[in-house]
Amino acid sequence: MTLSPINRATTINGDNMLPRIKKLRAKLKQNSLDGLLVSSAANVSYLTDSLSRDAYLLVSANKIFYFTDARYSEEVKETLKNKVTLKIINGSVFRLIAQTCLKARLKRIGFEERLLAFAEYRSIKRELKLEAKLIPTIGLVEEIRQIKEPRELEIIKQAVFITQQALGFIKNHVKPGKKEIEIVAELEHFIRYHGSLDSAFQIIVASGPNSRFPHHISGPRIIRDNELVLIDIGVEYLGYKSDLTRAFFVGKISLLTRKIYDIVRRAQAIAIKNIIPGAKASQIDKACRDYISASGFANGFNHSLGHAIGLEVHEDPRLSRKDDTLLEPGMVFTVEPAIYLPGKFGIRIEDMVAVTKKGAQVLSGSLD
Amino acid sequence: MTLSPINRATTINGDNMLPRIKKLRAKLKQNSLDGLLVSSAANVSYLTDSLSRDAYLLVSANKIFYFTDARYSEEVKETLKNKVTLKIINGSVFRLIAQTCLKARLKRIGFEERLLAFAEYRSIKRELKLEAKLIPTIGLVEEIRQIKEPRELEIIKQAVFITQQALGFIKNHVKPGKKEIEIVAELEHFIRYHGSLDSAFQIIVASGPNSRFPHHISGPRIIRDNELVLIDIGVEYLGYKSDLTRAFFVGKISLLTRKIYDIVRRAQAIAIKNIIPGAKASQIDKACRDYISASGFANGFNHSLGHAIGLEVHEDPRLSRKDDTLLEPGMVFTVEPAIYLPGKFGIRIEDMVAVTKKGAQVLSGSLD
Repeated sequence: MTLSPINRATTINGDNMLPRIKKLRAKLKQNSLDGLLVSSAANVSYLTDSLSRDAYLLVSANKIFYFTDARYSEEVKETLKNKVTLKIINGSVFRLIAQTCLKARLKRIGFEERLLAFAEYRSIKRELKLEAKLIPTIGLVEEIRQIKEPRELEIIKQAVFITQQALGFIKNHVKPGKKEIEIVAELEHFIRYHGSLDSAFQIIVASGPNSRFPHHISGPRIIRDNELVLIDIGVEYLGYKSDLTRAFFVGKISLLTRKIYDIVRRAQAIAIKNIIPGAKASQIDKACRDYISASGFANGFNHSLGHAIGLEVHEDPRLSRKDDTLLEPGMVFTVEPAIYLPGKFGIRIEDMVAVTKKGAQVLSGSLD
Repeated sequence: MTLSPINRATTINGDNMLPRIKKLRAKLKQNSLDGLLVSSAANVSYLTDSLSRDAYLLVSANKIFYFTDARYSEEVKETLKNKVTLKIINGSVFRLIAQTCLKARLKRIGFEERLLAFAEYRSIKRELKLEAKLIPTIGLVEEIRQIKEPRELEIIKQAVFITQQALGFIKNHVKPGKKEIEIVAELEHFIRYHGSLDSAFQIIVASGPNSRFPHHISGPRIIRDNELVLIDIGVEYLGYKSDLTRAFFVGKISLLTRKIYDIVRRAQAIAIKNIIPGAKASQIDKACRDYISASGFANGFNHSLGHAIGLEVHEDPRLSRKDDTLLEPGMVFTVEPAIYLPGKFGIRIEDMVAVTKKGAQVLSGSLD
């Protein structure tokens, strides 16, 4: 693929709101729901095609209510006026939601059971009395989000592009004497001068033995000569996330490190070759894991191969043994095989791919 | 107060685990609970006096079970061995939790209803069958966390110290021609070279009219001459958070800006003067709000005065109209009065104070 220049005009402008709401309404109908209470910030952002925080959305067959508080009212009025019925929270949000449901005569109201706290469920239920019923749902909006629209793919590619630039830039900083956290500082600085407003998660710089912890918290450890440094970085771009991992070698590489690196690299290539529409997510994980096991490191790969990514870093489906979702064009995944050697070091290589009509497109450019 | 040098030895070493667990066990007894399932990362970190992520803790009268997955097992074994019974999740965490409850013969198991998703509640309940009961609880651990121990206060002071250094450093960067996000980049860079591993929240740099949004997302807007720039920054230090806001003036200040600034400054001084043990949290908010109203800007102050802060940025009690908690020595609050003028600009000044035996200590140094 051609890498996009940073100033390519791609925006979040609300244009996609109504088609997305339409898809959700079809699902409400299928599930015999009069409405859905959306409490996930990512789902509210997606459905309104805006960047939303601290808000709830209530979607029925003919209405869209947006609940937020006074801190956001001026912003929301500017971006979403005429598109939603704005409800400013002043008191109990749960009472306001329940009253809105009752006024709109909704009887069966879905809620996102993985994202609503038990206390919130209990408060709304109490306010609804016996006049309406709360129905647990899972993934109604997330299922729609699995297939990325062309514009979403463009935005994700921009996020990946910024991340790759950052990884190119940081090469010269990964030197003996530097602290892990100083490398993080340089990356956090770079991405904000190159189009991103924030990192997607706490950037991981794991040097030497720290590389054996998949979720290492970078700290004051000083990088030494002849060490491996793993960098796992993601950025946010217009709400969308990236997630890439690269291994850097400072000085000489040991034979064992080189060997492990080559196995992980080949395992990743095998995984990506297996990504085609119609394949099961679990098959991709298996193909990759089988290769690592055959290489003698079955116990070294202690997490799943990857995850979908978009408005959130970790989305469904997962490229894991347990997920039998069939891959479809428009899905975007991380592919991140790894081998961790207890007490020694670990190597993980992570790229992002989009499922195409024929196979997979590596969003982070060529693998070579 | 004397500002602490950055290398003052303060660590998270597990020493405070048992006294904290003891306090929790007394609360379990009061509430006739056989155990508490702790699902908040901050609460798990607090109770184990460690930095915990992706973990659940189950505390009973004589056992402490720690649930986490393979990615963290090596780390946890190093830090918490002999202190907890480690349960590695391999399959359903909810089944594992339920089985552990049943094996330990716990009958009445509390859970944190504001922090456990409805789906998690439902899964554990199903696995428990009718042999044990899940009891919703609110704030059992958070109540203990309200009163900071001397060592916690030391750590929070360090977080505040780093934040103040960052605010001092950034003065020279707040210049016409700079983008808001570039100022954020410099701050994110600075704090990691000065002892913090991360910012506590997305740093806010709000220039000119953007200052009227309390939760502005900093972006590419370029700072102009004769503008106001609000900077709201917090850092993390050993898991504890800081939160300070300062107003910077680029070039000449308008008379209105100066007037609003002075009112907010005086309102903050009034609030802090009212902070003494035994006062109601709501009284502090009221004293401050009354002054702003009397100055003619009643509608400009559209959020509460402040919040407790510690392992989380926003903790209870709140300095708000609705919170009648009595202040006690060891509580730590932000005090952040503000006036926002719709369509124009906003000014917020935020400091952190600890309640002492006699009054309040401003952790961010003198107010002058």
